[in-house]
Amino acid sequence: MFKELEGAAIGSSRPLAAVLDALAFNADGLAPAIAQDADSGTVLMLAWMDRTAIERTLASGLAWYYSRSRKRHWQKGESSGHVQRLVEMRFDCDGDAILLRVRQQGPACHTNRANCFYLLVNGKQARVTSERIAER
Amino acid sequence: MFKELEGAAIGSSRPLAAVLDALAFNADGLAPAIAQDADSGTVLMLAWMDRTAIERTLASGLAWYYSRSRKRHWQKGESSGHVQRLVEMRFDCDGDAILLRVRQQGPACHTNRANCFYLLVNGKQARVTSERIAER
Repeated sequence: MFKELEGAAIGSSRPLAAVLDALAFNADGLAPAIAQDADSGTVLMLAWMDRTAIERTLASGLAWYYSRSRKRHWQKGESSGHVQRLVEMRFDCDGDAILLRVRQQGPACHTNRANCFYLLVNGKQARVTSERIAER
Repeated sequence: MFKELEGAAIGSSRPLAAVLDALAFNADGLAPAIAQDADSGTVLMLAWMDRTAIERTLASGLAWYYSRSRKRHWQKGESSGHVQRLVEMRFDCDGDAILLRVRQQGPACHTNRANCFYLLVNGKQARVTSERIAER
């Protein structure tokens, strides 16, 4: 499926169910999913999805992931309220990575920073580049 | 290291070598790396890095990855010329994902599309949303 789509013209389409069947999940049934702010383009976080997480996200319009540490599905923001409303979902050329463009409610990171990528390489140091957003 | 940095104030820094030592690579010694266009914010691709790929990228200023299928390091664009010049490298809150902000030479995707995420979920279909860039 993905190999065949490599040469497909813009506008070509395939049934979603067949595309989901062809996704290249890893040995644990997971693929990395990038959450990106649909408005600013900021990369918010990277998490993991299995087919169930993909289907729940598409059905609900809210991002669901699979937690490798807790070994269960979670809806982003289920406890914090910091949900991600799905704007669009994309797959990459070889069907082993997922891009979610979302509208993020509150901070995306569990540290209460706006996004998870706050540690910047700066010469021989790595530096924290954002402040935690105060709880209301 | 990453746990301790969760509460660190903006501007806090740590030695890069210690941060690299603390990265949470998977069982194969790899972590997912997101390549993002530093100017447009477009997510270009997702690939995998080990510590060597990180070090080569920082030393050369050009993105290096580890190919799981070919089982070797590769410099992005080594055969195509479509290199990625590093603008900045970031790590996420738990040190298991990497963000490279880059300037991409030519198309990022091996299909000759500008980026790899050209398959968009559209209702019950998935649709190709970009054209391949013509070879010169």
